[in-house]
Amino acid sequence: MRIIDKQNLENIAAGAAVLGTGGGGDPHVGKLMAMAAIEKYGPVTLLSPQEVGDDDWVVSASMTGAPSILVEKIPSGTEVIRAFEAICEYSEKEIKAIYPIEIGGVNSIVPLVLGAITGLPVVDTDGIGRAFPELQMVTFHLAGLQSAPLSVADEKGNTLIVTGIDNQWNERIIRAALIAMGGSVMVCSNLMQGRVLKAEGIHHTLTLAEKIGETVHGLRHRNENPIAALVDVLEGKLLFEGKINNLLRRNAGGFTRGEVYFDGINRYQGKQAMISFQNEFLVATIDQQPVVTTPDLIMILDLETGFPITTEVLRYGNRAAIVAMPCDAKWRTEKGLQTAGPRYFGYDIDYIPLQV
Amino acid sequence: MRIIDKQNLENIAAGAAVLGTGGGGDPHVGKLMAMAAIEKYGPVTLLSPQEVGDDDWVVSASMTGAPSILVEKIPSGTEVIRAFEAICEYSEKEIKAIYPIEIGGVNSIVPLVLGAITGLPVVDTDGIGRAFPELQMVTFHLAGLQSAPLSVADEKGNTLIVTGIDNQWNERIIRAALIAMGGSVMVCSNLMQGRVLKAEGIHHTLTLAEKIGETVHGLRHRNENPIAALVDVLEGKLLFEGKINNLLRRNAGGFTRGEVYFDGINRYQGKQAMISFQNEFLVATIDQQPVVTTPDLIMILDLETGFPITTEVLRYGNRAAIVAMPCDAKWRTEKGLQTAGPRYFGYDIDYIPLQV
Repeated sequence: MRIIDKQNLENIAAGAAVLGTGGGGDPHVGKLMAMAAIEKYGPVTLLSPQEVGDDDWVVSASMTGAPSILVEKIPSGTEVIRAFEAICEYSEKEIKAIYPIEIGGVNSIVPLVLGAITGLPVVDTDGIGRAFPELQMVTFHLAGLQSAPLSVADEKGNTLIVTGIDNQWNERIIRAALIAMGGSVMVCSNLMQGRVLKAEGIHHTLTLAEKIGETVHGLRHRNENPIAALVDVLEGKLLFEGKINNLLRRNAGGFTRGEVYFDGINRYQGKQAMISFQNEFLVATIDQQPVVTTPDLIMILDLETGFPITTEVLRYGNRAAIVAMPCDAKWRTEKGLQTAGPRYFGYDIDYIPLQV
Repeated sequence: MRIIDKQNLENIAAGAAVLGTGGGGDPHVGKLMAMAAIEKYGPVTLLSPQEVGDDDWVVSASMTGAPSILVEKIPSGTEVIRAFEAICEYSEKEIKAIYPIEIGGVNSIVPLVLGAITGLPVVDTDGIGRAFPELQMVTFHLAGLQSAPLSVADEKGNTLIVTGIDNQWNERIIRAALIAMGGSVMVCSNLMQGRVLKAEGIHHTLTLAEKIGETVHGLRHRNENPIAALVDVLEGKLLFEGKINNLLRRNAGGFTRGEVYFDGINRYQGKQAMISFQNEFLVATIDQQPVVTTPDLIMILDLETGFPITTEVLRYGNRAAIVAMPCDAKWRTEKGLQTAGPRYFGYDIDYIPLQV
């Protein structure tokens, strides 16, 4: 158990954006939300997973939708409270803690905002170990657990409770509804007891994000190569260094989708890289050969500062490193790859397990 | 209070399809559903509005979506039960009776199906006095009442509770969700107490439907002009007799939309008529002049039998009468016309109050 203050928060936001692999929204938006909440309601308690009681009810809180819309439509904070109140009332459970459904810019921070407002602790465990675009892409789904009931709230005051027959139906229905609701909503889902979270979650990922954020922020003051330092803390691999020479990005089907193209620089001069994304970076190719695919993590980091560049802030001329990191072993199983491997997203390629 | 048996049901289904002005689904589908339910669970009690206790909770049950999809996807009966159970559980109210939200083929019958299964009585009162395509188009909306919470269930087993900030938001969100859910769903909405239903509903419309249905069925055995007999019982007006020479019909935005064109026959020889529809028939023109518009009722009746022809069964070569009937006075108010007048549906014409 430890207290999350503004400095911890700043590091978590930066590190979560690195692990968010392009998705999860602009970390700056998330940070501003949480700073305001801590300012107003006081700091948040972070629990280690083992500190959660086996019988205690816990629920996730997250933003779902297109992150590029979120930047234009900053959540007011009231929608996450309404989503939380709706799931409490509907389930009639006394919820003891909140956890992040994924690690990604805004979605690592949303539970901390809710924790600050409600006074409930946040668990240092998430349901992916990275960020993924669809609601059923969580380790709980791999374990056969249902995400329903889910509560959904928008900034206008509309609230839904969704009880689909399976996790894919929840995704389909909520995606359709959130498009009608303006493109992004807050969701509480995967209400479960502590013993299940301990068995099926990915642990210590907020702390990992914080460590990554410390590295990113620390780099400002040193003369070190930022990319090498980050590859080291991520236990990842540098794939490419390049300059963005083309970007195709659109909002479609409730997601931010597109492709970003790089001309190689430094020792990658003369090579070309391309990354396809659907909220998150999903496939990286070098000279048209796939080199890393989902569910492994693909990150685009600013070459000078090491700061992550998310899908909605990518732009022509960015000089960046492409870095990869192996996903959690839960995603390398048959069901993991069926759920979030390259073929699920429509790419006609097999998963290439990243070796580091 | 009276018992609805299979014969009453047959008449209600036929008459409700006349009042359904093209929408509300194929009456044959509704009739088959209700016949099966009465066969299995016994007859249904119909209450006069004054027999409902002022403090008793009542709720509407209806199908929402594109009627042309409903024909392909006949409700199993389990979805209306799940929608009803969801609203009971969510609201924690002891619901004493069910009422039809509108008078139209399937939607006059759905409450009778639910009444048969649950043993609850059905009230002889609806929320429109005809059929309309969107959820906020009810007299309760004109009275400033909220339709939320609404429960939504599909035939697959998916269930939603929607609590929008206003009636238009409920419509938008449910329309988006039902498209994802396959194009038609069952909805329970406008939970209210008896005193409100008595003040704001349109009364005795199931009985009116039954009377119309008796006329339609009686015509089979007589040598009378069926259209003249129906115009008489409807207190309506014959506008045109013609043969369908063109039909544009598509499923779009969760509705069945289109236009149907007629060449005049009998004393209308040499004239042309056209009717625009969005689930229901909304504007009738003769020789390109609008003659009747929503919210007044426009019906297409088979010239030989008097049977109503609904939007999803219209076809080239149908010989039909176009008949109109004035709407309830509640729809002729400023808010009534804002909610369901021709301009709401995008027609650049003013409402022309039908004179009979």
